[in-house]
Amino acid sequence: MASFTLHGIPVSRGIAIGRAHLLAPAALDVKHYLVAQEQIEAEVQRLQNAIAAVHKELQTLWNELPKDAPTELGAFIDVHALILSDPMIAEAPLDIIRSRHYNAEWALLTQIDELSAQFDEIEDPYLRERKADIQQVAERVLKVLLGTEQLLPKAAADDELLAQMIVVAHDISPADMLQFRDRSFIGFITDVGGQNSHTAIVARSLDIPAAVGMSQASMLIEQDDWLIIDGDAGVVIANPSPLVLEQYRERQVAMQRARKKLGKLKKTPAVTRCGTPITLLANIELPEDCPFALESGASGVGLFRSEFLFMGRAHKIPTEDEQFEAYRNTVQSMKGRVVTIRTLDIGADKPLDQSDHTALNPALGLRAIRYCLAEPQLFLTQLRAILRASAFGKVRILIPMLAHAFEIDQSLAMIAQAKASLREEGVKFDDEVEVGAMIEIPAAALALPMFVKRMDFLSIGTNDLIQYTLAIDRVDYEVAHLYNPLHPAVLQLISMTIAAGHKAGIDVAVCGEMAGDVKLTRLLLGMGLREFSMHPAQLLAVKQEILNSDLGLIAPQMRKIMRSMEPNVIAEAVQQLQLM
Amino acid sequence: MASFTLHGIPVSRGIAIGRAHLLAPAALDVKHYLVAQEQIEAEVQRLQNAIAAVHKELQTLWNELPKDAPTELGAFIDVHALILSDPMIAEAPLDIIRSRHYNAEWALLTQIDELSAQFDEIEDPYLRERKADIQQVAERVLKVLLGTEQLLPKAAADDELLAQMIVVAHDISPADMLQFRDRSFIGFITDVGGQNSHTAIVARSLDIPAAVGMSQASMLIEQDDWLIIDGDAGVVIANPSPLVLEQYRERQVAMQRARKKLGKLKKTPAVTRCGTPITLLANIELPEDCPFALESGASGVGLFRSEFLFMGRAHKIPTEDEQFEAYRNTVQSMKGRVVTIRTLDIGADKPLDQSDHTALNPALGLRAIRYCLAEPQLFLTQLRAILRASAFGKVRILIPMLAHAFEIDQSLAMIAQAKASLREEGVKFDDEVEVGAMIEIPAAALALPMFVKRMDFLSIGTNDLIQYTLAIDRVDYEVAHLYNPLHPAVLQLISMTIAAGHKAGIDVAVCGEMAGDVKLTRLLLGMGLREFSMHPAQLLAVKQEILNSDLGLIAPQMRKIMRSMEPNVIAEAVQQLQLM
Repeated sequence: MASFTLHGIPVSRGIAIGRAHLLAPAALDVKHYLVAQEQIEAEVQRLQNAIAAVHKELQTLWNELPKDAPTELGAFIDVHALILSDPMIAEAPLDIIRSRHYNAEWALLTQIDELSAQFDEIEDPYLRERKADIQQVAERVLKVLLGTEQLLPKAAADDELLAQMIVVAHDISPADMLQFRDRSFIGFITDVGGQNSHTAIVARSLDIPAAVGMSQASMLIEQDDWLIIDGDAGVVIANPSPLVLEQYRERQVAMQRARKKLGKLKKTPAVTRCGTPITLLANIELPEDCPFALESGASGVGLFRSEFLFMGRAHKIPTEDEQFEAYRNTVQSMKGRVVTIRTLDIGADKPLDQSDHTALNPALGLRAIRYCLAEPQLFLTQLRAILRASAFGKVRILIPMLAHAFEIDQSLAMIAQAKASLREEGVKFDDEVEVGAMIEIPAAALALPMFVKRMDFLSIGTNDLIQYTLAIDRVDYEVAHLYNPLHPAVLQLISMTIAAGHKAGIDVAVCGEMAGDVKLTRLLLGMGLREFSMHPAQLLAVKQEILNSDLGLIAPQMRKIMRSMEPNVIAEAVQQLQLM
Repeated sequence: MASFTLHGIPVSRGIAIGRAHLLAPAALDVKHYLVAQEQIEAEVQRLQNAIAAVHKELQTLWNELPKDAPTELGAFIDVHALILSDPMIAEAPLDIIRSRHYNAEWALLTQIDELSAQFDEIEDPYLRERKADIQQVAERVLKVLLGTEQLLPKAAADDELLAQMIVVAHDISPADMLQFRDRSFIGFITDVGGQNSHTAIVARSLDIPAAVGMSQASMLIEQDDWLIIDGDAGVVIANPSPLVLEQYRERQVAMQRARKKLGKLKKTPAVTRCGTPITLLANIELPEDCPFALESGASGVGLFRSEFLFMGRAHKIPTEDEQFEAYRNTVQSMKGRVVTIRTLDIGADKPLDQSDHTALNPALGLRAIRYCLAEPQLFLTQLRAILRASAFGKVRILIPMLAHAFEIDQSLAMIAQAKASLREEGVKFDDEVEVGAMIEIPAAALALPMFVKRMDFLSIGTNDLIQYTLAIDRVDYEVAHLYNPLHPAVLQLISMTIAAGHKAGIDVAVCGEMAGDVKLTRLLLGMGLREFSMHPAQLLAVKQEILNSDLGLIAPQMRKIMRSMEPNVIAEAVQQLQLM
């Protein structure tokens, strides 16, 4: 196999060395696991049963056709039955279960992907599209499989096999990424996506190397190819030579050593060289992230992305009690430290399963607080759950995507309503719970007096703020190069927000990606930021940067940066900041 | 038929009274016209020939199938042949041609829509989706029809029939709207869209009443229903009572009278009551709009949306010569007045036919100057064409969607390159042609020093500026209510831009929808705006407002507006402005 190198966008640091595991888009919705040797035949039987059940289903459909139904309806059913009987579908997947130990769903999809590829090569566009029929038949079978028991647990030896696999896909949705949290894949490669796509964020959260925006990776890389992901460079090397492989193994070891060294800073207070204390908080997605947050020495949670509780749940919204449990778990796990819970931020690249709206520009559509205010029952349920958890520790409520005064007022009214209902029921909560606003829409950063007079704290969501200020979709690879945190307009909005918050005497945090980027730590310090919230994996490196910073030295350089309108001048000045 | 009233968003003023002409999405791509009585049978024959040709095509496909082709490929072809022979397809459309005088394509699609609706009612989801096969067969027939001669011209009597029709559709793309420019439909109703959707802009440009965001209109209204569009209120009344009909006819007459009165202002100079002269320019889309612009008394073209030359051309980009002709025509039609040509602004809701990229958020993607810089040959061709036209009158070049310094620099470098190539070829152009920037991204309005030092003039695109500042997609009905030109952040950005331009001594215009809204004329005057560019239909009403305005009276109220962060206070103060 020829060795080749692909260049993309580095999104999650570290080096991964393993074998390619290609996932087609359709394949992402179903479970993937390896079946233990002794259960192989049972798994084969499970698939055979499912196929037989679909045959029966089609027969029933045929029999129940009304007499006056158009002739072609019967013909359609025939076509599906024909496909189902074909050895391509009826036999090939069984061989895959036996030879590769894939579970039934995975085996079926692997075969369907191969067939689809064949169809794609057919010249006639109409016949090419008939691929859809094959996929529909596969869906029928998958639906039946879904209802049958899965043969877990898997054998330990197979787990090891899985632990060497790097997922390669055209794209992985945030909901799909969730399933990988429990598995042990060691890297992610996707054709699309950018630095701040949700896929990238989750990869970082799993602390697993990833490279996105790799263009044709899922076409060029073949199943089981050996791969190296250089997560720092955004480079993927397929079928590396032994020499290259050796070099990367050495780098892997060196990086582990450096990480260990940072670990010693865990209990060191985050104070600048000149003596200013800085608050370092963790961004988390699920209660299970808390140990990692504590391990990193975070003094609390600055951003709990609650929408992850809502995702990948196949049309079932978590109940108030389920949410309460998750929030209380988090609060208790954090042992008295502050926990900032952001209310549901769905939409854009974080669609809720049950949502069926397809906006032309979801990032500019009904998302986050807009969605919550349009679904008051859903919002009230979440607010009640958060408030109930506030009885168990220090909780703050953070509202995303606010831009209008009436949205702030309505949100506060909903919180008051949730409190009133709990009070009436005699349920305990912290009546003094602080409520803050995400500043992530340009209009918000330009109308700060509207916010500081109504809110207890602010948190700057730099990812979205940059996206809207520059009119750049952060996950669109075609314009990813235009996404620039150092654009003078962005710096102004961040700086204005920090200043306005401090002037009003309320806390201001940055919880976007900028907070975790050591190259920008001194810039943010220079703007007056005293509260950083980031992924736990980045926290100690940022702390080290803070320990080495002197605000007095930074100040003159900051004036130069903030006065400049020339990106080159700014970029250079920010680089110089790091050397001070 | 029961009378009912639907409420949507008013986007194009006036009253239309006519009969519903429902268009399904697929129907929009093909020509719609009525066939003269004496050509009916020839048109029937045209459709029959096309169906026969597709039969032959399928037979050929069958014969050419390789021997080892999967069995179902043959079955798929059979299904298509079966559909094609069904009287539903083979006969019903012929009757439609005979009874309704529709052309063959229209007749076929009308029948397909009806069939599709029947399929939608089928319970089994897989069979329901088989609708796709019927549509594919129809597409095969349409493709053949496309290659055959169309039976134009139509009879005059039929034109009259057409002239009473109101288009009702789920949505109409800008490219599709173009085909309606030549026809004589008297109104437009769409389920989706907002105040500033392109559909709305084109409807206003045609000066035809329209109502969008009508939710289920295309489902509730039936073919040939009598309809009233009240374009001012955004209301549609289906099957109105004789009394209601009479009232609306009276209002129609009264509105025509008022319009006539405004017409007398055509030659009056646009000067405020206190003596400040104001420049009123026209927004146009095609050279053919020039007479209308002159008729309205515009002192030039402030925005020539060149992308309309590129649309609806089915994969063929206009050549340099074609573009040059269009630009020169425009320049010459405007008789020495300034013509501001905006370079290609495609993307978002204005896709170029030949583009196959599907961005998740097109409004935040590769559009306008971003696209042009990524396609330098396309951009150079346009720049050369514009420059060549500059030899025939006063031309200005306007670059859309700039946000970064390097984009400005690259654009200017491309213009220099275009000039150099023309110079080398000895082709004449105006070397002093002014180059300006659209200010429509928040980052641009926040980095004005970057612009004023490089550009000759600025033009504020309020539609996009509001969209990005508020993170609201202006065509997404779910969030359309959040689109607010009076948000304090928006007012600040506009005001800052006007002030920065004047301070630097360069012209600043507003060419977005705000410029044509008489309710906002005094607000913009108060901010210092002296150049308004708008649709010609709005120009005289804005002029009247200017004639009645006194800047001295406006000033104190303006301070109140610009200091406020409370939307209610602002809205009220702007209303009071109008009474001064």
